[in-house]
Amino acid sequence: MTTIIKNGTVVTADLTYEADVKIEGGVITEIGPNLSGGTELDATGCYVMPGGIDPHVHLEMPFMGTYSSDDFESGTRAALAGGTTMVVDFCLPSPEQSLLDAIQMWDNKSTRANCDYSFHMAITWWGEQVFNEMETVVKDRGINTFKHFLAYKGALMVNDDELYASFQRCAALGATPMVHAENGDVVAELSAKLLAEGNTGPEAHAYSRPSQVEGEATNRAIMIADMAGAPLYVVHTSCEEAHEAIRRARMQGKRVWGEPLIQHLTLDESEYFNQDWDHAARRVMSPPFRNKKHQDSLWAGLQSGSLSVVATDHCAFTTEQKRFGVGDFTKIPNGTGGLEDRMPMLWTHGVETGRLTMNEFVAVTSTNIAKILNMYPKKGAIIVGADADILVWDPEKEKTISAGAQQSAIDYNVFEGQQVRGLPRFTLSRGHVSIHDGEVKTREGHGKFVKRKPNAPVNAALSKWKELTAPTPVKRTGIPATGV
Amino acid sequence: MTTIIKNGTVVTADLTYEADVKIEGGVITEIGPNLSGGTELDATGCYVMPGGIDPHVHLEMPFMGTYSSDDFESGTRAALAGGTTMVVDFCLPSPEQSLLDAIQMWDNKSTRANCDYSFHMAITWWGEQVFNEMETVVKDRGINTFKHFLAYKGALMVNDDELYASFQRCAALGATPMVHAENGDVVAELSAKLLAEGNTGPEAHAYSRPSQVEGEATNRAIMIADMAGAPLYVVHTSCEEAHEAIRRARMQGKRVWGEPLIQHLTLDESEYFNQDWDHAARRVMSPPFRNKKHQDSLWAGLQSGSLSVVATDHCAFTTEQKRFGVGDFTKIPNGTGGLEDRMPMLWTHGVETGRLTMNEFVAVTSTNIAKILNMYPKKGAIIVGADADILVWDPEKEKTISAGAQQSAIDYNVFEGQQVRGLPRFTLSRGHVSIHDGEVKTREGHGKFVKRKPNAPVNAALSKWKELTAPTPVKRTGIPATGV
Amino acid sequence: MTTIIKNGTVVTADLTYEADVKIEGGVITEIGPNLSGGTELDATGCYVMPGGIDPHVHLEMPFMGTYSSDDFESGTRAALAGGTTMVVDFCLPSPEQSLLDAIQMWDNKSTRANCDYSFHMAITWWGEQVFNEMETVVKDRGINTFKHFLAYKGALMVNDDELYASFQRCAALGATPMVHAENGDVVAELSAKLLAEGNTGPEAHAYSRPSQVEGEATNRAIMIADMAGAPLYVVHTSCEEAHEAIRRARMQGKRVWGEPLIQHLTLDESEYFNQDWDHAARRVMSPPFRNKKHQDSLWAGLQSGSLSVVATDHCAFTTEQKRFGVGDFTKIPNGTGGLEDRMPMLWTHGVETGRLTMNEFVAVTSTNIAKILNMYPKKGAIIVGADADILVWDPEKEKTISAGAQQSAIDYNVFEGQQVRGLPRFTLSRGHVSIHDGEVKTREGHGKFVKRKPNAPVNAALSKWKELTAPTPVKRTGIPATGV
Amino acid sequence: MTTIIKNGTVVTADLTYEADVKIEGGVITEIGPNLSGGTELDATGCYVMPGGIDPHVHLEMPFMGTYSSDDFESGTRAALAGGTTMVVDFCLPSPEQSLLDAIQMWDNKSTRANCDYSFHMAITWWGEQVFNEMETVVKDRGINTFKHFLAYKGALMVNDDELYASFQRCAALGATPMVHAENGDVVAELSAKLLAEGNTGPEAHAYSRPSQVEGEATNRAIMIADMAGAPLYVVHTSCEEAHEAIRRARMQGKRVWGEPLIQHLTLDESEYFNQDWDHAARRVMSPPFRNKKHQDSLWAGLQSGSLSVVATDHCAFTTEQKRFGVGDFTKIPNGTGGLEDRMPMLWTHGVETGRLTMNEFVAVTSTNIAKILNMYPKKGAIIVGADADILVWDPEKEKTISAGAQQSAIDYNVFEGQQVRGLPRFTLSRGHVSIHDGEVKTREGHGKFVKRKPNAPVNAALSKWKELTAPTPVKRTGIPATGV
Ligand SMILES: [Zn+2]
Ligand SMILES: [Zn+2]
Ligand SMILES: [Zn+2]
Ligand SMILES: [Zn+2]
Ligand SMILES: [Zn+2]
Ligand SMILES: [Zn+2]
Ligand SMILES: [Zn+2]
Ligand SMILES: [Zn+2]
Repeated sequence: MTTIIKNGTVVTADLTYEADVKIEGGVITEIGPNLSGGTELDATGCYVMPGGIDPHVHLEMPFMGTYSSDDFESGTRAALAGGTTMVVDFCLPSPEQSLLDAIQMWDNKSTRANCDYSFHMAITWWGEQVFNEMETVVKDRGINTFKHFLAYKGALMVNDDELYASFQRCAALGATPMVHAENGDVVAELSAKLLAEGNTGPEAHAYSRPSQVEGEATNRAIMIADMAGAPLYVVHTSCEEAHEAIRRARMQGKRVWGEPLIQHLTLDESEYFNQDWDHAARRVMSPPFRNKKHQDSLWAGLQSGSLSVVATDHCAFTTEQKRFGVGDFTKIPNGTGGLEDRMPMLWTHGVETGRLTMNEFVAVTSTNIAKILNMYPKKGAIIVGADADILVWDPEKEKTISAGAQQSAIDYNVFEGQQVRGLPRFTLSRGHVSIHDGEVKTREGHGKFVKRKPNAPVNAALSKWKELTAPTPVKRTGIPATGV
Repeated sequence: MTTIIKNGTVVTADLTYEADVKIEGGVITEIGPNLSGGTELDATGCYVMPGGIDPHVHLEMPFMGTYSSDDFESGTRAALAGGTTMVVDFCLPSPEQSLLDAIQMWDNKSTRANCDYSFHMAITWWGEQVFNEMETVVKDRGINTFKHFLAYKGALMVNDDELYASFQRCAALGATPMVHAENGDVVAELSAKLLAEGNTGPEAHAYSRPSQVEGEATNRAIMIADMAGAPLYVVHTSCEEAHEAIRRARMQGKRVWGEPLIQHLTLDESEYFNQDWDHAARRVMSPPFRNKKHQDSLWAGLQSGSLSVVATDHCAFTTEQKRFGVGDFTKIPNGTGGLEDRMPMLWTHGVETGRLTMNEFVAVTSTNIAKILNMYPKKGAIIVGADADILVWDPEKEKTISAGAQQSAIDYNVFEGQQVRGLPRFTLSRGHVSIHDGEVKTREGHGKFVKRKPNAPVNAALSKWKELTAPTPVKRTGIPATGV
Repeated sequence: MTTIIKNGTVVTADLTYEADVKIEGGVITEIGPNLSGGTELDATGCYVMPGGIDPHVHLEMPFMGTYSSDDFESGTRAALAGGTTMVVDFCLPSPEQSLLDAIQMWDNKSTRANCDYSFHMAITWWGEQVFNEMETVVKDRGINTFKHFLAYKGALMVNDDELYASFQRCAALGATPMVHAENGDVVAELSAKLLAEGNTGPEAHAYSRPSQVEGEATNRAIMIADMAGAPLYVVHTSCEEAHEAIRRARMQGKRVWGEPLIQHLTLDESEYFNQDWDHAARRVMSPPFRNKKHQDSLWAGLQSGSLSVVATDHCAFTTEQKRFGVGDFTKIPNGTGGLEDRMPMLWTHGVETGRLTMNEFVAVTSTNIAKILNMYPKKGAIIVGADADILVWDPEKEKTISAGAQQSAIDYNVFEGQQVRGLPRFTLSRGHVSIHDGEVKTREGHGKFVKRKPNAPVNAALSKWKELTAPTPVKRTGIPATGV
Repeated sequence: MTTIIKNGTVVTADLTYEADVKIEGGVITEIGPNLSGGTELDATGCYVMPGGIDPHVHLEMPFMGTYSSDDFESGTRAALAGGTTMVVDFCLPSPEQSLLDAIQMWDNKSTRANCDYSFHMAITWWGEQVFNEMETVVKDRGINTFKHFLAYKGALMVNDDELYASFQRCAALGATPMVHAENGDVVAELSAKLLAEGNTGPEAHAYSRPSQVEGEATNRAIMIADMAGAPLYVVHTSCEEAHEAIRRARMQGKRVWGEPLIQHLTLDESEYFNQDWDHAARRVMSPPFRNKKHQDSLWAGLQSGSLSVVATDHCAFTTEQKRFGVGDFTKIPNGTGGLEDRMPMLWTHGVETGRLTMNEFVAVTSTNIAKILNMYPKKGAIIVGADADILVWDPEKEKTISAGAQQSAIDYNVFEGQQVRGLPRFTLSRGHVSIHDGEVKTREGHGKFVKRKPNAPVNAALSKWKELTAPTPVKRTGIPATGV
């Protein structure tokens, strides 16, 4: 089947030009003027962009005997509705669980996906088995990114020596470590103190995870990655302190990427002070929303390149699930939605204001992500041979965000009432028109797992440099030295 | 005539992949496997990259009744020999001279160019005529960049109010201002003091222009550009102080680019302390070479993206010309060569060490430059439709740099004796094989002027943001206010 | 006459201890327990501190044919009422006026002062006469500080080469240069643009002098001072950008001091958006009030020592005078009051909140100033032999600031309505009880000029270092070098 | 017995003035001109300064069944010989040992001290007993500082949650936590890796503790102190990374002090590359010596006040002890001497070069230390009532440092061969002339323990601020909220 996207303006991370795009077999086969010979999609007045990639989602994530409410079906449907054509989820082994078994569980959950997806592997415990399985994960399973939690003490958190060991293993395998950077020890202590003092509401969640603890953990992970000889991807960079640590590292030539979330770019901490417990609890996520100073920092990071990508950490819990934490904020499940809103929210607040160019929009929502995760140009590109994950973006289309009208399975939306300008006319997943002007045409199970190879150019270059500058012993003649 | 580059690996700022490249009429017409049907150039074992662009050269530059020794013929020949396929020169009006007359002079000089070229226009004086002609320069002559000198007091230097006025004019025209950033007042005072104290040798040139005066001027130009609503391109960023100012600006979301030179990346101030006056004087340029701390800063800037491009400021004066300054360092003509050596020196010290990936090498020597100067993808790209300015790079080829074997017209080379690894097998200028394994096949007059349009995406975005955040008056009812 | 301050707690920049203080002949003659033998002042429950010193005031300053409304009599009366026992005014020569003539004018005005005072000399023009007279000013007239304006283009402003020349002269004389740091060229351009666009109200004053122009000028002055070998005192540091430049300089070991004003520490830019033109215009000063981010920066600077002193820039214009600028903000006379309120406002917002210790309060309001201006311990100390400029501070005393109740001659107060806690019980000027529980007992003409010597320890140390690290010529044997 | 120091110039952290000093009963009883009536010490041509205080020494420190070679007798003798009149040692409880028992052990060792001393208490393990005993230590034993090791994994190191708990306890008690800041996990991993790769020599000690691991740990400790509401004293700040973390904290108003050592200020890493194993091993300490960039950073910190004091970490191991580590650098006992050389080395490289004023010299070697440790003005002051710990400093006296001529018990000196200018003419310990022109007159057992009270002004102010800004719960009416 052949599809032609007609009369649009192609917008990539590099370029803006008028051209039609031909798709055959789910792949882009021609780009040029006046293409014909297939089903035509009218892109008049629209931008034809690489579909969004969300590098950070949690679909059907296990939680206290239940699951986050969006599974791979509803989650990817929401993604496509908002112009995102690929998601990367986190495979989370239980303590002592084999990494390969965990992948099996994630494979099982993801069969119903409407768009392509990939996994990051989380290192939630450490041991010889993990060390060994990491190689299989990289070489056989096509996963080149390993997530580490510096928070969630007693659960997912790993210690500094485990971090160093795992980062070093990543470096040896040509893989890239990632971190959730908050100091879990301090969060635990602050949480206990707050509860003891009667701070039990959702606002105490924010109190318990101030930007300082994120900045510290980011700084620490960067140092450890540097010592281990690995690059580093910092997930959900939400604040100036963490951003400062990333900038400082980059300023020394270190290979570190930061990932702000659309929530942190556009929402602020005042949400937690809402009189309505539900309103506040629905916004509970880690890191929490910050103030305007931090938002400005994140936007500037996208402009200057010190921050590289925009994600959502989509992890949707219903109001009912949120209420597990009534009377004890530490029991409120952490997570908010965003998959459906990332692209229009970023366009509205970024491109429409002049903070970002259209090309930068494509870069931070898609192309940079594909490059860092080493799946470019299969993904993240409008180029012959690339997967036809394409977004036909209508910059004139507007709507007011509302939970009532969304694809996501949760019963609210943290962006409720926000006016956005810029929405998909078409979203194509490997050539399949999944969304057309708000109409959902997704195909359950259409999505496939995307393998990603290790040894991306940056990883290889860094390894070369580290080898070149490795310590060498001084040659000595005796002790005490003769003739010295 | 059709040319096929066979069996190479295409390396762009984005991608590395195996493909042949077909060239017809000086333009890339096809990229893919197994192309045939024309003259074949064997690229086995080589990287097929966009030809280098040097954004900063001075060919046949007028100086005290004579000229810098490389003209557009020898200069572009040297460029091509080193893998650079385009140069951007600075059109320098004399005081009170019409900008258009100056362009005419530069047009006359450039007729013999062996490769394509463009001009930046320098604003060396200010007045209504300049204000008016800037529009013609942008709209008719295809020049979208305006250079300003904060140094060279009494000659090229402009004051802060002129700077603001010109920057504001740039913003209105969608053009980008550039600055040579050294505090000319302080340089003049320091120079006079040094001479008075008997510091007359070439090392006093370095004493007279410490990194502090560059940092200050960079910081000032950035502020003025911000107030005027324009982005800013800082030429020859040589030191941490200037780089810090650029980083600080970028960290606030400002649109500022820095341009280190290959000389500052690889040579240091110890050259000025050479016992041989000629040796030292031949290295006299502004800004002068710095120490290792500054070099590390520049390399890290290229790695992190806080610095954007690598240039040469090629402005070659012969030993004889340098000796104008015997007994008075302020009379030593400022400038060194580099056009022929930029690419191999950067590859050797950057890619071979692992500091830069190959893609980053292409970005900083070509693609970023083409984008910032708004001539991408005509230049700086390996893409169908782009000019066939192509470099077939042999990473195994080695040589020792030597003035005796160079194309440049000067009688020495500041990189003399440096061992480089990575050299052109072929350099093509719009399809013409100008260099083949060291053999020079350049065609005098082959080069053409490249027009560059204003309103690049970043300029447009910045203008939008500035408009959105412009000051507005408070509405008041009377003085003294009634009812207040 | 002998006075004993009984039962108080002495608080200095260093120490807190219980002791009585004996005063004879205007000088402290004994400090210890159980002193007696003179008029006793009861300091029970009070802190006995060095009287405040305001290093930055403009009394009876000439302005468009009239004067700022507080003269040396009312100004010093207001000072004493608020616990300040010494002020330093700026002697402002007219263009081409002899510095010595200007001192004469200031001497004439200051005869009625109620407390001691000194002068800074402003360098408002440059020439051989100024160069020569600077020596007389320092050596004969006891003035070791020279103020330079980087703003007020066409009036007080000096250029970079004049700045360098004057700073170098200061270094040679062992004097300390000071700067009003705003880029006057840019302020002038922005002002013209704002007026042209219809931004004529007092809020446009703030628009015309954004923090960026202050940061830039501060950075520039620091560089020039460094090149000239002089320390630098930056007056009215109001923003993070300027503070950042100061911190960066200090972090490199440079000798730079910053002086925030009590207004910038406690009031913000929202004042300019007041619906009442008078309200806004009364707050017009340069630099203008800033936002909370800048306030936080200034407070942190006082805490860490990167900012050294707190002043007022007291320059009081009446509402009538302010109205010169109706319809054109550039005509609103620049200046606000503060002399009477600096100490209680800083105590309330600094010490009462825990941001500053009492000792730090004394340091930044008195002792540091005396040290930097090289008149310690005659001033700024509670020590035997020091002038008895003493403040007996009642930390329990409260009031609401109100123009109606103030000593200052102006008809409003920018702190109107502010609740303060901590006020003088007694203020003594060289032993004379000038204020007693709000009762004014000042003695007109009691105040004397305080001479200040050059070559303070920091100046001397800096000169030594600069000499040690001065550039030296390379010895060479011939050109071309023989045997090289 | 009465002693008069005649004809000297008193130099304090504040002041320089000519005066005689009278001492009675070990205390200063009068300062003024022409004192008489006791034994006269001729201070003609000398500076009369507060004796040095070394805030960081380890005398007779237990180590692998033996002890560091200088005990309280030889150590304090060396101190006095170099102008230091007080030392503060670290009381190091064994795992599970009572803090009070540990004090008993330290009390036993210190009976032979020749000068006054105090202790910091180390928190080497955590538990309810430690929590409880900390109160006794503070309130009864006069110790207000608690040291924590982030390095020495498996031995002294504490984890982040223990750190937070202990810091919080310090805050509650008005005590100040201190940290040895290196990431012990990473040091352990790097050490193992180096050994495995054949890097066994003393230079590998430096490789195993790069500045990055110190910067990270410093940054982490600062964050934890901030969260716990305590100020922080960072011992042996040796590098720019750690200094940067301290500056960044201070720039936010945090109360953090850094302590460079005289070794790091004047010696560099090249020592470890010496061909002589003994030479290198004798310099093994943690953190290791750094390069010139770091030295410049430390000096600038002393100049600007971002670093507060200069110490030695004197912990002297003999060559024989050092050789425990032949073949395995991790077994080389960590520590160098310095007690005897700190004052002359700092004077020579600081005051003689103009980097520091004499007053700043006094501040960083004595007065600042006394203030931070809350024993000012008993110590660190030349003031009536202060202990007569006085240094009569002859700025013309010179020597070449040599192990052969030193008081310290070790058989080498890391400053061997250094020429110093500025040495004690007299060193007085509470009035006792212990050193006279190189002649040792110390009195064994003369030294007494100095109790130090909690709740220094800065601690109290910080607690007030933390209380004022503590989180408070949002008041809510129901879930789901009624009427929302
Ligand atoms: Zn997370
Ligand atoms: Zn997540
Ligand atoms: Zn230039
Ligand atoms: Zn140039
Ligand atoms: Zn001013
Ligand atoms: Zn002023
Ligand atoms: Zn230690
Ligand atoms: Zn120690």
